[in-house]
Amino acid sequence: MFRTHTCGELRIHDVNKKICLAGWVQRIRKMGAMTFVDLRDRYGLTQLIVDQETNAACIETVNKMGREWVIQVQGLVRERSGKNPQMATGDVEIKVEEIKVLNAAATPPFTIEEQTDGGDELRMSYRYLDLRRPPLSRNMQLRHKMAMATRNYLDKQGFLEIETPVLINSTPEGARDFVVPSRMNPGEFYALPQSPQMFKQLLMVSGYDRYFQLVKCFRDEDLRADRQPEFTQIDCEMSFVEQEDILNTFEGLIRYLFKEIKGVEFKEAFRRMSWADAMRYYGSDKPDLRFGMPLVEIKPLTSGRSFNVFEQAEYVGAICAPGSATYTRKQLDELTEYVKRPQIGAKGMVYVRCEADGSFKSSVDKFYNQDDLKAWAEVCKARPGDLILILSGATHATRKALSELRLEMGRRLGLCDKNTYTPLWVIDFPMFEWDEDTARYYAMHHPFTSPKPEDIPLLDQDPAQVRANAYDMVINGVELGGGSIRIHDSQLQAKIFKILGFTEEKAVQRFGFLMNAFKFGAPPHGGIAFGFDRCVSMFAGLDSIRDCIAFPKNNSGRDVMIDAPSAIDQEQLDELQLKILAPKNKE
Amino acid sequence: MFRTHTCGELRIHDVNKKICLAGWVQRIRKMGAMTFVDLRDRYGLTQLIVDQETNAACIETVNKMGREWVIQVQGLVRERSGKNPQMATGDVEIKVEEIKVLNAAATPPFTIEEQTDGGDELRMSYRYLDLRRPPLSRNMQLRHKMAMATRNYLDKQGFLEIETPVLINSTPEGARDFVVPSRMNPGEFYALPQSPQMFKQLLMVSGYDRYFQLVKCFRDEDLRADRQPEFTQIDCEMSFVEQEDILNTFEGLIRYLFKEIKGVEFKEAFRRMSWADAMRYYGSDKPDLRFGMPLVEIKPLTSGRSFNVFEQAEYVGAICAPGSATYTRKQLDELTEYVKRPQIGAKGMVYVRCEADGSFKSSVDKFYNQDDLKAWAEVCKARPGDLILILSGATHATRKALSELRLEMGRRLGLCDKNTYTPLWVIDFPMFEWDEDTARYYAMHHPFTSPKPEDIPLLDQDPAQVRANAYDMVINGVELGGGSIRIHDSQLQAKIFKILGFTEEKAVQRFGFLMNAFKFGAPPHGGIAFGFDRCVSMFAGLDSIRDCIAFPKNNSGRDVMIDAPSAIDQEQLDELQLKILAPKNKE
Repeated sequence: MFRTHTCGELRIHDVNKKICLAGWVQRIRKMGAMTFVDLRDRYGLTQLIVDQETNAACIETVNKMGREWVIQVQGLVRERSGKNPQMATGDVEIKVEEIKVLNAAATPPFTIEEQTDGGDELRMSYRYLDLRRPPLSRNMQLRHKMAMATRNYLDKQGFLEIETPVLINSTPEGARDFVVPSRMNPGEFYALPQSPQMFKQLLMVSGYDRYFQLVKCFRDEDLRADRQPEFTQIDCEMSFVEQEDILNTFEGLIRYLFKEIKGVEFKEAFRRMSWADAMRYYGSDKPDLRFGMPLVEIKPLTSGRSFNVFEQAEYVGAICAPGSATYTRKQLDELTEYVKRPQIGAKGMVYVRCEADGSFKSSVDKFYNQDDLKAWAEVCKARPGDLILILSGATHATRKALSELRLEMGRRLGLCDKNTYTPLWVIDFPMFEWDEDTARYYAMHHPFTSPKPEDIPLLDQDPAQVRANAYDMVINGVELGGGSIRIHDSQLQAKIFKILGFTEEKAVQRFGFLMNAFKFGAPPHGGIAFGFDRCVSMFAGLDSIRDCIAFPKNNSGRDVMIDAPSAIDQEQLDELQLKILAPKNKE
Repeated sequence: MFRTHTCGELRIHDVNKKICLAGWVQRIRKMGAMTFVDLRDRYGLTQLIVDQETNAACIETVNKMGREWVIQVQGLVRERSGKNPQMATGDVEIKVEEIKVLNAAATPPFTIEEQTDGGDELRMSYRYLDLRRPPLSRNMQLRHKMAMATRNYLDKQGFLEIETPVLINSTPEGARDFVVPSRMNPGEFYALPQSPQMFKQLLMVSGYDRYFQLVKCFRDEDLRADRQPEFTQIDCEMSFVEQEDILNTFEGLIRYLFKEIKGVEFKEAFRRMSWADAMRYYGSDKPDLRFGMPLVEIKPLTSGRSFNVFEQAEYVGAICAPGSATYTRKQLDELTEYVKRPQIGAKGMVYVRCEADGSFKSSVDKFYNQDDLKAWAEVCKARPGDLILILSGATHATRKALSELRLEMGRRLGLCDKNTYTPLWVIDFPMFEWDEDTARYYAMHHPFTSPKPEDIPLLDQDPAQVRANAYDMVINGVELGGGSIRIHDSQLQAKIFKILGFTEEKAVQRFGFLMNAFKFGAPPHGGIAFGFDRCVSMFAGLDSIRDCIAFPKNNSGRDVMIDAPSAIDQEQLDELQLKILAPKNKE
């Protein structure tokens, strides 16, 4: 061992001990005959002091040293004259007796400190240096602790972690698969799993009763800010349970993680909201409940006043931004521009200022009188000083736009505190989504999701009205996980496949081995999967999942540090009996 | 919840409780008016009893039921009149009051019992049914427990589990990679990791100090009995350590696993043996030390007697099989055939029977007198009643053949007890292996392995003599893991690359980003990786790793249950800009 202690360990009671430390040079300061060196490792920082008068040999070494050199020192722990209460080791320093350079270091291309001067791309190319910075180091330690806590909780609940295969088959349903050509079976391909869905259901058929796995999953999607081609799930499945059992078990997991990791205890049961209510009151299936500002439908109160925009709208909805009546014309114009962005897609925005004196000032004063506006204010529960913002148009699209506006106002009003957590179960999702382009129903969750028993008669009459035993866990507007009770009755499954437009042949081709397995005694079962990267990133207070992943890929799916993907040898292609058709088109 | 208890839970103190169970029908027996049903779940078996006279409705349901049906029962716990001490629940039975069929089951294609009548291929096709059998269920539970224990031990030692990427770059060194075409970067490929070797070394450069990961690795090799294309490693790396620290830390892990999981405590420190001694005394770098029977070199004692086979041999070696002097001519012929098999490759075998009366009987009596044979017996420490078996030829090949013969005799003599464990560190591996075909040195461990400091001067003079700071953990002749101290000095690394015949350009191309990282302050570090599948399989007493993996592949790399790999859509190929050259050649 190159050390007796780590750089985060020494305290006042260690004074006068002879110790040995090893680590990286964070900083060197000369003050007269004294040279101070801050030595860093994963555990912390310790101040070293080298005295030119008593230790000329060491000073010679120190003079050669630079930032990020790896050194080993022997010395005596002393009490500091000027203590540093900001540092865990701030009561002591090491009077260095011997110093040994273990490795020199080139000057890093950016500073390795809490805050860095390095740009995003540069830091990604030198990810191994960026990972030295304390914020990233804390994220990696947090991730480890959360994985351990998750496993400990589930183990105590009788769950078994069972590894499912990574080299499986391509399933055309869902997102695009990454595929892996098979050399031993030329012309054939494995696919990397988008989730272990089928395998965990098979494990239930096998009687494993309670399964979980922290598992890498893969999706070949065009990447957005918060997506990675490989990501990690907490994947779970249980047998002989109903929806209520799953909600309770995994509410328990989330409570446990918050308590163990963040010291946060939730006193009340997690709130539950139907998907229909979430859409009606928040315009989103993952509402952020850290603040109120619900959507209020005011269409009936706007009729008969010849304001064509509202008259022709299927839906007119409002939110009430507290204390924002003072918003200037410029601020209101900004908000209008915000909702008119193509991603949000509103045509315009109407506002009503609820003035302090009880009067109202609106952008539609020409059409609506004070009594009209008062009626709107009343249903919106607006008080003097509040600002009512109104969008109109097709119901679904307008609700979604209002949801974005609500979130924007939440951010502007400072209502999105990162240290407040508002967990929510969204339940009663619709079974099906109708797709106009292909003129067919798609499974909103996945094709094995069970309808609510009381809605089964609706399958024949009006599939769009059928609700599923499906649920999402949402915290602060982030969907952390979701799942469903599965169908275990093969006749019901056949009916669902029919509604989804799968011929029997197609269903067999896609899900044949699972359907076959179900013939041999499938128990009632259901499950859930959490996005582990998202969970860690929420606990770390990050805006992106990237910095809770040690070696993430960029938005083109590249690892710029190792420069992957890359060309492979012709020999490898020949063995796989593959030919590349396009010229290599490297970004 | 569909049950109040599991099928493994009820005991005599539960008598008179109203309970509800759910599970699979294992067996139905009719005895007069009584019908007995054994109900099974992951936790055990419980006997149900249905009384025709008091519960005619239930009997009707029971009469329809068959093996592996999924049912739910309500009833009363009763004390059994005839207790079954073989069953954990054998003191009680359930007097059934209500029975509900949750799912019917087709008759399974083989029996779902401790022992089954199903052939290997059939069971692999219906793996989900085979997984219901108690031996497989026990293996999966063992695997989970071992993974939990491994993580708990390493966590307590300050290791962080850090996930490394699965989509990386192909490295031409080593075994063949599985590759993944990139749609977003046409013509380029990711590769699946054979191990996270480079990433764990980067994490040391990043200062993570103690890293581990239970991680899937991939090798596109022609598969032998005990290989899988995807397998799981316990991958570990530490900084600021020397070989001794790594050996102690991971001896600790193995001790902990044996104690926690099997209740086995090792009293002594794990034995250590140099690679040279392992080869000399056991003809193997993974000797099985459950029994002795070491190789004894007797060439000097065989010279000058005109026996040409021995005269011309580079090496003559013997093992002494205790108490086997009674081996018949037929048995000896069998052994001779055994060593002459192409996999072993001996030309013939010489034996010496040490008779009870102190005389010797040998197959080379024509050339050697009783005194000669006595001299051999003495160095072999043979006693009356023992059998000496002798092979001769080139040193390395003959030692390997003798090793196989030794293991065969160990098996025949019942010396390979599955419940005896003899852990061993094999150390001081050679740095390089000379390959005749390519006329170059290869790294025996990998190119980043550090030579022993005292052997560094030999690098220039005689690379073949240089020993590495590399080590393997061997138990009962199975290599469970191995690792090395890494080179952290870039000049030494450059020298090793040169000996390995890498031009600077080639070294940069292959390992450039790692070599670059090392310029920024690499700490002294080293690590180890254990084959987790092998560890579980040893703890489970299995001969193959296959049955400790939930969904293994067969020897052609196929998952016969889901029929992977398989053809993919032309659309997918087009998106990847790939063309398949050969006609599909499905086995």
